[in-house]
Amino acid sequence: MEKKSQHVEPKQEEKEEPQASICGYDSLHRLLHDNLSPHLYQEVSRVLSGYNCGKAVEAIGLPESATGLSSQHGFDFLGFRFNAEKELLREPRVVRVGLIQNSIALPTTAHFVDQKKAIFEKLKPIIDAAGSSGVNILCLQEAWMMPFAFCTREKRWCEFAEPVDGESTQFLRSFALKYNMVIISPILERDINHGEVMWNTAVVIGNHGNIIGKHRKNHIPRVGDFNESTYYMEGNTGHPVFETAFGKIAINICYGRHHPLNWLAFGLNGAEIVFNPSATVGELSEPMWSIEARNAAIANSYFVASINRVGTETFPNPFTSGDGKPAHADFGHFYGSSYVSAPDASCTPSLSRHRDGLLITDMDLNLCRQVKDKWGFRMTSRYELYAETLAHYVKPDFEPQVISDPLLHKKSS
Amino acid sequence: MEKKSQHVEPKQEEKEEPQASICGYDSLHRLLHDNLSPHLYQEVSRVLSGYNCGKAVEAIGLPESATGLSSQHGFDFLGFRFNAEKELLREPRVVRVGLIQNSIALPTTAHFVDQKKAIFEKLKPIIDAAGSSGVNILCLQEAWMMPFAFCTREKRWCEFAEPVDGESTQFLRSFALKYNMVIISPILERDINHGEVMWNTAVVIGNHGNIIGKHRKNHIPRVGDFNESTYYMEGNTGHPVFETAFGKIAINICYGRHHPLNWLAFGLNGAEIVFNPSATVGELSEPMWSIEARNAAIANSYFVASINRVGTETFPNPFTSGDGKPAHADFGHFYGSSYVSAPDASCTPSLSRHRDGLLITDMDLNLCRQVKDKWGFRMTSRYELYAETLAHYVKPDFEPQVISDPLLHKKSS
Repeated sequence: MEKKSQHVEPKQEEKEEPQASICGYDSLHRLLHDNLSPHLYQEVSRVLSGYNCGKAVEAIGLPESATGLSSQHGFDFLGFRFNAEKELLREPRVVRVGLIQNSIALPTTAHFVDQKKAIFEKLKPIIDAAGSSGVNILCLQEAWMMPFAFCTREKRWCEFAEPVDGESTQFLRSFALKYNMVIISPILERDINHGEVMWNTAVVIGNHGNIIGKHRKNHIPRVGDFNESTYYMEGNTGHPVFETAFGKIAINICYGRHHPLNWLAFGLNGAEIVFNPSATVGELSEPMWSIEARNAAIANSYFVASINRVGTETFPNPFTSGDGKPAHADFGHFYGSSYVSAPDASCTPSLSRHRDGLLITDMDLNLCRQVKDKWGFRMTSRYELYAETLAHYVKPDFEPQVISDPLLHKKSS
Repeated sequence: MEKKSQHVEPKQEEKEEPQASICGYDSLHRLLHDNLSPHLYQEVSRVLSGYNCGKAVEAIGLPESATGLSSQHGFDFLGFRFNAEKELLREPRVVRVGLIQNSIALPTTAHFVDQKKAIFEKLKPIIDAAGSSGVNILCLQEAWMMPFAFCTREKRWCEFAEPVDGESTQFLRSFALKYNMVIISPILERDINHGEVMWNTAVVIGNHGNIIGKHRKNHIPRVGDFNESTYYMEGNTGHPVFETAFGKIAINICYGRHHPLNWLAFGLNGAEIVFNPSATVGELSEPMWSIEARNAAIANSYFVASINRVGTETFPNPFTSGDGKPAHADFGHFYGSSYVSAPDASCTPSLSRHRDGLLITDMDLNLCRQVKDKWGFRMTSRYELYAETLAHYVKPDFEPQVISDPLLHKKSS
């Protein structure tokens, strides 16, 4: 089954997501797998995706109940495992993580209530597949309960916002309870107690259906059509690590992945898995997508679980993009490609660039400390030095450490 | 010529570097180029190597005098160009950068004087090729004037160390003068004025043959056979940026590439190109090699020029590796693969994994500020927040920001 789901013909998706036909292939790994000899594919994979405990990252078998839902509802479904070395004093701590990527369900012209309801309906079988696969921690994409309408700068989309305990949380807590599953739910938050301002927030729902806490997006983009700073400010929740029944987790929302200090701070607070729910488009960021999360996993000795939404969202009123080009109505192609990076520099193949998908990954969290012990990045980090550097840098009269060539303006002989 | 040098048959190298035959292909890009249709190769390249100003990174023509040296002396020779958008108020600032990777020239059992002299002789035609190609800034690999003997923990290799103005600097300053070229020379430094201790140091030689300054490696590894901490301590020169006739440059030596804060500090001081002269081996780091430098270029909006040495170095006396395995006499395969990363997430193909090489890259430094303006990573970085985070973290009584599920120990129903 695994093989089959990993190498679906591209034609099928093009029907489902016609805007995406510019690059019709399903994922880089499938393309390379289908076009290289097994021997070459193996070596290319080693260099591109690393090795985990001396071997290519293993695909895992998935239960029929879940693969049935995948076939029936047409979502991509892959599963992998990261191993760690056996230890004498600790048992393996294997956590099963699920990531969901999805397109919206109705046109953005539909009534807002119907749009949200349709996304709920669309997600149900995918969450059921995760639950029936025994997923321990499930994460949805950024602002999963709405179209990514921030490109428009129109304030009417604020009506999608909800308080932390709003309808999306209520919808998900029943699944959390049913499947004994932690669920991370990134929403557009309306902060009732603080003048009804909005935040880009991840709600962490415990495996008993309780709300453990929330984290608000730390870095807000001002690039391309990402006009989010029109709607909400930089988060005020610090870099919390949530101690759940299945491990210590944190959430780095979307644009925060471009900021190594943001990744660092979650690591300093002890995260073993950092989720990066995102919404990002092809022309802007696709070549960065396979770099930043993996670098964060390597540099901070934790797992990173990256999710990107899927499809092209078209809005009722055309808008300009600050690039001098004519107004247009869509945000470009959200290229999916959700994947998981491990602290040992290995990573899973990605989900489809075009289709909804569920990625399941078993990870032995013992790998985090094993990599710390092996590579010693924490030990050799000289944080004192950089605490001083940053304290110095933020002063308005900061002057950079520059050594000028005294012969700079001498003419060459 | 370009095409030809980019797709050399692997057999040739195996003769030159027989230890490397485990993975006989020359570079990942050449392997993909030779095994995928042009259409697929183009798309794979876009995702793997990014686009620069909307196109694949361009190969450039190189002068015959230099290609002749490459054929005669059998070193790999590639050239590429990174463009920037035209600006109204600034002219393009195109700098030609050269990177040299090389294996040692004599067995490690030869007299030390002969070993060093043989490396000098081997480098001459490669430096001449760089000079006659009009290279403005040339960088050599880490500790280029000696075998990477730190695996042995034997102190006799300290005899290779030199003061900053020692024979290696004297050797290179004549080329700097002849070709009007800045040369970065990473050596094992003997600090005469401070009790003859050693440092892992990059000497920056100006285009008039003068010594502009030095930088000492900030982060010292304790991983695998990298026993460098037996020989020298963490550098005490901060994060200097050298203002040269051809741009503001900095040097992040080897293991410092695993430390995002180190990359950051060079950026804060205004570097436009950061060189990463390295010596690293296949099994340990190859899957990280294509990630960390590119992430640094993206996160800090500067160019990164990465160099790794080539070949397998075997030492007279076997040594153990702290992995419980039997003593052995070699360090593993230094896999070359030098390449350049740009701030817009694009990168060049790599030099050979097995052969000496010269990589020439034209880069319009205007791209750095253009990317800063576009993506706004500096503006959105919240350095004040992280200055506080780090100051807090380094205190012995630091407690991480953890939010525990209050139902953590409740049994599931």
